[in-house]
Amino acid sequence: MGKSFMDMDFLLSGEIARRLYHGHATNMPIIDYHCHIDPQQIYEDKVFADLTEVWLGGDHYKWRAMRSNGVAEEYITGTATTPYQKFEQWAATMPKLIGNPLYHWTHLELQRYFGIYEPLTPDTCQAIWERGNEQLKALSARAIIVKSKVKAICTTDDPADDLRWHKLIAEDESFDCKVLPAFRPDKALNIDKPGFTDYLTRLGEAAGVSIDSISALKEALRKRLDYFVSLGCRASDHGLDYIMYEHGDADATLNKALGGQAVSREEADAYKTEVMAYLAGLYRERGVVMQMHYGAVRNNNPQAMADLGPDTGFDAIWGAPDSGAKLGALLGHMERQGGLPKTIIYSLNPTDNAQIGAIIGCFQKPEHPGWVQHGSAWWFNDTKTGMIEQITSLANLSVLGNFIGMLTDSRSFLSYTRHEYFRRILCDLIGGWVENGEYPCDMPLLGRMVEDISYNNTAAYFGLTLED
Amino acid sequence: MGKSFMDMDFLLSGEIARRLYHGHATNMPIIDYHCHIDPQQIYEDKVFADLTEVWLGGDHYKWRAMRSNGVAEEYITGTATTPYQKFEQWAATMPKLIGNPLYHWTHLELQRYFGIYEPLTPDTCQAIWERGNEQLKALSARAIIVKSKVKAICTTDDPADDLRWHKLIAEDESFDCKVLPAFRPDKALNIDKPGFTDYLTRLGEAAGVSIDSISALKEALRKRLDYFVSLGCRASDHGLDYIMYEHGDADATLNKALGGQAVSREEADAYKTEVMAYLAGLYRERGVVMQMHYGAVRNNNPQAMADLGPDTGFDAIWGAPDSGAKLGALLGHMERQGGLPKTIIYSLNPTDNAQIGAIIGCFQKPEHPGWVQHGSAWWFNDTKTGMIEQITSLANLSVLGNFIGMLTDSRSFLSYTRHEYFRRILCDLIGGWVENGEYPCDMPLLGRMVEDISYNNTAAYFGLTLED
Amino acid sequence: MGKSFMDMDFLLSGEIARRLYHGHATNMPIIDYHCHIDPQQIYEDKVFADLTEVWLGGDHYKWRAMRSNGVAEEYITGTATTPYQKFEQWAATMPKLIGNPLYHWTHLELQRYFGIYEPLTPDTCQAIWERGNEQLKALSARAIIVKSKVKAICTTDDPADDLRWHKLIAEDESFDCKVLPAFRPDKALNIDKPGFTDYLTRLGEAAGVSIDSISALKEALRKRLDYFVSLGCRASDHGLDYIMYEHGDADATLNKALGGQAVSREEADAYKTEVMAYLAGLYRERGVVMQMHYGAVRNNNPQAMADLGPDTGFDAIWGAPDSGAKLGALLGHMERQGGLPKTIIYSLNPTDNAQIGAIIGCFQKPEHPGWVQHGSAWWFNDTKTGMIEQITSLANLSVLGNFIGMLTDSRSFLSYTRHEYFRRILCDLIGGWVENGEYPCDMPLLGRMVEDISYNNTAAYFGLTLED
Repeated sequence: MGKSFMDMDFLLSGEIARRLYHGHATNMPIIDYHCHIDPQQIYEDKVFADLTEVWLGGDHYKWRAMRSNGVAEEYITGTATTPYQKFEQWAATMPKLIGNPLYHWTHLELQRYFGIYEPLTPDTCQAIWERGNEQLKALSARAIIVKSKVKAICTTDDPADDLRWHKLIAEDESFDCKVLPAFRPDKALNIDKPGFTDYLTRLGEAAGVSIDSISALKEALRKRLDYFVSLGCRASDHGLDYIMYEHGDADATLNKALGGQAVSREEADAYKTEVMAYLAGLYRERGVVMQMHYGAVRNNNPQAMADLGPDTGFDAIWGAPDSGAKLGALLGHMERQGGLPKTIIYSLNPTDNAQIGAIIGCFQKPEHPGWVQHGSAWWFNDTKTGMIEQITSLANLSVLGNFIGMLTDSRSFLSYTRHEYFRRILCDLIGGWVENGEYPCDMPLLGRMVEDISYNNTAAYFGLTLED
Repeated sequence: MGKSFMDMDFLLSGEIARRLYHGHATNMPIIDYHCHIDPQQIYEDKVFADLTEVWLGGDHYKWRAMRSNGVAEEYITGTATTPYQKFEQWAATMPKLIGNPLYHWTHLELQRYFGIYEPLTPDTCQAIWERGNEQLKALSARAIIVKSKVKAICTTDDPADDLRWHKLIAEDESFDCKVLPAFRPDKALNIDKPGFTDYLTRLGEAAGVSIDSISALKEALRKRLDYFVSLGCRASDHGLDYIMYEHGDADATLNKALGGQAVSREEADAYKTEVMAYLAGLYRERGVVMQMHYGAVRNNNPQAMADLGPDTGFDAIWGAPDSGAKLGALLGHMERQGGLPKTIIYSLNPTDNAQIGAIIGCFQKPEHPGWVQHGSAWWFNDTKTGMIEQITSLANLSVLGNFIGMLTDSRSFLSYTRHEYFRRILCDLIGGWVENGEYPCDMPLLGRMVEDISYNNTAAYFGLTLED
Repeated sequence: MGKSFMDMDFLLSGEIARRLYHGHATNMPIIDYHCHIDPQQIYEDKVFADLTEVWLGGDHYKWRAMRSNGVAEEYITGTATTPYQKFEQWAATMPKLIGNPLYHWTHLELQRYFGIYEPLTPDTCQAIWERGNEQLKALSARAIIVKSKVKAICTTDDPADDLRWHKLIAEDESFDCKVLPAFRPDKALNIDKPGFTDYLTRLGEAAGVSIDSISALKEALRKRLDYFVSLGCRASDHGLDYIMYEHGDADATLNKALGGQAVSREEADAYKTEVMAYLAGLYRERGVVMQMHYGAVRNNNPQAMADLGPDTGFDAIWGAPDSGAKLGALLGHMERQGGLPKTIIYSLNPTDNAQIGAIIGCFQKPEHPGWVQHGSAWWFNDTKTGMIEQITSLANLSVLGNFIGMLTDSRSFLSYTRHEYFRRILCDLIGGWVENGEYPCDMPLLGRMVEDISYNNTAAYFGLTLED
């Protein structure tokens, strides 16, 4: 009758996969280079009240699943229900989530952080609630990070942020994990979205620059980037609706927007193209990795947006099919301007995998193997099939041995098991190829490759030399 | 050397899959909520002359396959050839259809309805023709429906239809299967296609409304929908070329069209957006399920269109890549207007799976689990791989346990074995996950889930409470 | 621990697959109907200096992989490095290419042409270099062709080409393999690209026609096509950025371009539509197969374009999502004009597979089974997964038994092992279906089908009757 439920060989089909995972992958630490963890919670070493807070608070992946199971909002984000009532609804949803990564993540987290090996169901809900809450007392934010062997975390931060928590963490010698800011200037790019001019005021104040022209904007961004870099920033992050590539008078467009006038899509695209190319040059000079992800269409449900605001589980996948052509044009433009920094490209649409795999091959550099990366399967795609497809596509079209591996995109401290999930899938794929005669059974070489993709490539790519 | 050809364990790889299929799936009745069966043939309990009539008459799936094998039209839709000559050509095409779902459907139908277990080839053609025709005498339309355990059928009907056959069937107490009309107002939406104004005249006559404005059109549609609902209608169906979302003066556009003027694509899209949103509100009030499918590009071969007309096997798959963004906007608009009814979304393009899986999660409601559904793999996609991809995508992105399962889109009474095909694939996927340690081996829970997806969810979704 | 590395049963999982491959596929000769081999090298029976020349010279697939591994251009296309230094870099890249088809092609070529069974690594580099170079002395261009059982080669030739090497090869009775020109008039279509008018001058000179109107252009193309056909041409080839379908005054547009004026995208598309439809009619009359491939976006890296020129490994995949609708319109237009010739359609974007599989079913003809073909997985897609997906999609949507199988798109004489790669994958798929009970285990029928897809279908499709 097959394998036991999520035992130590979970997702590992063959002997080689098992040896690669248990002998190599599982020993490697984690660099969480892309997440949405709150640095204040790390500094203050947050202790969580109960499983509902640590698990369901802020995690819109789980909220969507509960809504899809017909759970009323009151039991998801509502305030009149008890934490246990919410947990009960999550437990009731769980058994129907067969085939969903949430099913696996939930049980990996129960196993690794709480030593709980029973499936979560309405029957086990009460017992798991009690045992989990008991253990949670010892699982502060930092304890989870240490237990997960996380060596570095890149949070996601606005250029106007003062990064006070990052400074405080850096000064705290009792905590070894590096917590570095990542530069995410989306609000300075989104000239076509509400709140743009207010944001520029805030950004200008943070930079000590009055932003009344494109050159002033660039100066402000440069100053803030330098400030981020002074605090260890190694990565930037850009969330684009779609890949744009347009030329136009960015200064005039900016003035239009500052004057309260609407800008056309072409104007906005040209503005974004110019600012992105400028930033790319800055990143290149400073050795900062540029992440670009695209293909989300956000806040689809107007009622939910009115009630709950953004990032609450109402986003979906854009079809941005001309990205294949635009992406090449944009990267080529950046290369001609200030030069292309190390770049990671993610699309939310899995049908873009082959396009990305092909385009990255056009912009590699001898300075570092894998200069341009096809980012890990992410958000709607960090499923077993999504990861298999991304890794296979990358192997087909590029050099898998140079891959920097998994990110978490996490909003919860318990999400580090997503690295385990990724590594098991990686080892199973590689082991399967070897057992199928598609690659020599050279275990030292294979072991090193798994260790590289799990950790070493990432450390080298972000220039993070970390003591053990 | 593996398994026998299409034996009782066809497509069932493991022990759990076999137990789920034989112990659960196969016992469940069928609700055929989306098909193109002719209700007159049900009422009159049609008896078929021979295998060619029941199998090849009107089934453009098979016609395409024969044409792709170089069979002349005379042996497909021609009138100068004998039924047996046509059957011979089908038998000659069969062996080359390795890997094609028609190969499996054909042999499932031979097995289940005729007790014939030999492969259809030129060698077996004559014998199968004779045995099949002999047995066909006892296989009237109703006999097939009863033998297939079909509890309810939703046919596809034009709003101008008088539904006389549905009324007659409902009055016939000798037949237990519910045969309900489904409301398909495509012709009232297709303001940009030939025959629109003539159609509005017919619709107006049926409704007793003179359609000279958008409000009159809405009144006519509402009246016809109420008539359909009075005869048990539980579902509507919309075939859209692509997902449109546009605003404009629908009344002016309608008047333009009524006056014989051409309308622009933007005008047509705005008209359709307004009428669809209006209908969605009516469906919501009346508890009618809204089906929207898109992505077909029709009548590609002009010579074939001239010779044979529409729906004869010359359609293909549109690339409608902006549907991801448009779909969210359209559903959001409906939600803001009259509210979103239970909705099933299908695309003909399998590359839209992830987009649909993501968008449905934005519009769920606590009134019923799985309020918005990603419809079953369909038309060009109801293949083994197509079904696996749709089910896997749905499991990844939504809650598989709430899925309402398979439709037939059938034009033939013998197509009910597509439910068997789907259920075998479903059981194999679930069984495979369990045997791979990805889900607990809780057989009662798994059995119930399979029964739900096969039948119970569908019955509850369409509000069909059916006596055994 | 599974199978040995790339042994005789490479990619063949089951007994039936092995019997189909070893008993049928491997015996069949090759028709290489789509490649970029230089006929001069065939005529002169080119002898290669070393492994670097025969393997790395001109093969931009391998260049991309080396660049993606951080190899400096000097070691790829540079002139100051030695051939061995380049080979070393290739050997160093090899182990990281796990999962990449280059890994398999490289070792198939080492095995089949050089009898070398060790993996290429930095450790084995020196020994393989020496053994390979030694054996290469006996592996002239013609020797490789004969050893590979290639019966016919269709090179890719410009209409202005004088085909002198083809004539000389045809006159050479010492060489049995047919080397035929294929007609590739891209430069006459690309009215929107640099060099168009200069090219028309050259084409006019070759045809003895002064090209000053669309009718003169058509006359020139017709004369050159007739010349190609007189030298045995059986295939044309069209590389389109995307599928266009537009109407307009092609004569006026041509005159604009000849006068040095820019043409709009709509004008260019209408011009291309008219010229393509005209050519399709010529092909139909002359029994020439029309190949159309689309979806490449070329020369993305401006610095690389300046340094190295086109076709050096800087192309990627366009998203041309409206091709599904446009393709039907274009083929329908051709059918209405001069009639549709035998046609093979390829997209570089694997997400177009289903669209192509559906559209070809709309244009089949009784004159030959499989009149319109979905071309083999190609360029970025001739990977194991890419081939499996293309074959599976074709089987799902069309008649696999009529498929004309693999092309090489080769730029190297050693690429014939791609046919072996394809045939192993084909046999494994078919064998797998049979062992899974999805098709009867009729070995003579299956063997014939494999032989047909490997060779017989291709010979019949291109009208090549070849003595053994």
